[in-house]
Amino acid sequence: MADVTEASLDQVVYNEHGLVPAIVQQHDSGEVLMLAWMNEESLRRTLTEGRVTFWSRSRAELWRKGDTSGHRQYVRSVAMDCDGDTLLIRVEQIGAACHTGTRTCFTGRELDAVLGDPSSDTEFSGPSA
Amino acid sequence: MADVTEASLDQVVYNEHGLVPAIVQQHDSGEVLMLAWMNEESLRRTLTEGRVTFWSRSRAELWRKGDTSGHRQYVRSVAMDCDGDTLLIRVEQIGAACHTGTRTCFTGRELDAVLGDPSSDTEFSGPSA
Repeated sequence: MADVTEASLDQVVYNEHGLVPAIVQQHDSGEVLMLAWMNEESLRRTLTEGRVTFWSRSRAELWRKGDTSGHRQYVRSVAMDCDGDTLLIRVEQIGAACHTGTRTCFTGRELDAVLGDPSSDTEFSGPSA
Repeated sequence: MADVTEASLDQVVYNEHGLVPAIVQQHDSGEVLMLAWMNEESLRRTLTEGRVTFWSRSRAELWRKGDTSGHRQYVRSVAMDCDGDTLLIRVEQIGAACHTGTRTCFTGRELDAVLGDPSSDTEFSGPSA
């Protein structure tokens, strides 16, 4: 597993701060819970410990989710995107994902937006148009 | 709507490059399709046009998803997170979200990971532990 983990870590593309954004999703409901950042060491721990560890940019330290709050995240799967510069972590979330106490960090924080609909888009006639 | 949109734009926290990450999710299935970046103008267009527009970091230009590929994203909701520095855009995705042709940018790109489970975590006795 150690070699496999190191190979995975080498595939990921970190930004100029050595970080990669990690989207965290509840594995069964599909809720997007939060986005946080990982450095190589936090991803190594996440891949090997079964619990999610981030890099806290504000505290500049490793942050294993739930160690203080109890709101742990148990790893169900980890994927990177086509560019290798974003991670999707599917988890079993215990309790609230957000430090404000809401289930997700997006709960109750909608912005007003004009909605779109393919059936009313007169310019649109299908994916290959 | 113009004033409401400008108020929303003012709430969002952009990074040192003037960008904010936007997670894109299929509204009904819950699939996380991709992550891309928005500047203020791309978010303004996304909030007012019913279609998703990003900022392409590689091309350094506004990029309305689907104009070339036909794989448009119709806006169903837009939310920001608790810190205002991440967006969640729920959409109706036409066709493949990924430029490689896969439905999502994460499809088939799983990393090997040790899985976690609260029921086998002997340190864990509940959210308030």
